[in-house]
Amino acid sequence: MTGGAGDCSLQSVSRGGVMPLPEVHVFIATSLDGFIADPEGGIEWLTGLPVPEGEDHGYGAFMAGVDALVMGAGTFRTVAGFAEWPYVVPVTVMSRHLRAGDLPEGLRGRVAVSGATPVHVLEALAAGGARRVYVDGGRLVSSFLREGLVTRLVLTRVPVLLGAGRPLFVDVGRHALRLVEARHWAHGFVQETWAVLR
Amino acid sequence: MTGGAGDCSLQSVSRGGVMPLPEVHVFIATSLDGFIADPEGGIEWLTGLPVPEGEDHGYGAFMAGVDALVMGAGTFRTVAGFAEWPYVVPVTVMSRHLRAGDLPEGLRGRVAVSGATPVHVLEALAAGGARRVYVDGGRLVSSFLREGLVTRLVLTRVPVLLGAGRPLFVDVGRHALRLVEARHWAHGFVQETWAVLR
Repeated sequence: MTGGAGDCSLQSVSRGGVMPLPEVHVFIATSLDGFIADPEGGIEWLTGLPVPEGEDHGYGAFMAGVDALVMGAGTFRTVAGFAEWPYVVPVTVMSRHLRAGDLPEGLRGRVAVSGATPVHVLEALAAGGARRVYVDGGRLVSSFLREGLVTRLVLTRVPVLLGAGRPLFVDVGRHALRLVEARHWAHGFVQETWAVLR
Repeated sequence: MTGGAGDCSLQSVSRGGVMPLPEVHVFIATSLDGFIADPEGGIEWLTGLPVPEGEDHGYGAFMAGVDALVMGAGTFRTVAGFAEWPYVVPVTVMSRHLRAGDLPEGLRGRVAVSGATPVHVLEALAAGGARRVYVDGGRLVSSFLREGLVTRLVLTRVPVLLGAGRPLFVDVGRHALRLVEARHWAHGFVQETWAVLR
């Protein structure tokens, strides 16, 4: 994407009308006090918790239902450091600084970089046929919420008070929600699926 | 209580040994983003939600199991403004500024004021026979948590993202928790009971 907001809207119109935006789904875990990472960005407090082998808290089924993933540059840097790239669906990294040429060679074609706004990123994904988009990463989730673009949140809370860290929700505006599902596990994780109503 | 920390400890010893502190229980509702009140202290976003008549989300049963209530001056001022004083159990208002003489006449004998620290307030309640104390109000809950004094938290989350307000958890330190119970209601409230392990 190269144009500003005006260009993108024009492109939308030139494609023959307004295309519906894809649904935006969030699947994320927090401490009981709402943090997604400790003050240094670490998640050992989360990954170190005892969880029965093979229990993914619904993540696999969730991933099977989305056709694109949008993440911030911070999340991308973390994931790019893993031994294997974990995603099958196409990934868009939202960043004003990263360039496509900065991507590791093995990821070209699987990862796109966009400096556009949330709504324009969604428009571009809709144009590519995406209907359900997974948005990941704290700052990104808050900015999509703030702009009223999030359809559903799957929130998992783990049995830890962290005391300090990076909060999931920052200045997200006021929204009414509907509880779609609630479940919990014997090892102390609780999870709700919330529909964002407005 | 008139003495400082040293005096209180001395009194403890003079009573013939260390008395176990009472259990501290919390029962509180937050928005999904963790606020107990909006930026002006209002809770209309909570009290205005549709709830089936007679549904108290376990509050009555909870109250029946505690034998004292500790609250901050802010919560006290709100409750003192109600048409009727809603508590049967003795109430301690923790405040460095409020004096017993400031209390409305109808509340004398039912409400005590203490300028002591959380642990000394609990010691005094233990000396009076209290075994399970309900601590209410955002700042107070955080300070009792910070000092490792909270036994159990009953947290109710309601289907609202508020965007801004007064958070429940402020700098509470790191604690491991154990999920004791989880439940939810068709009107979208979810509630967990957590034991604070350390």
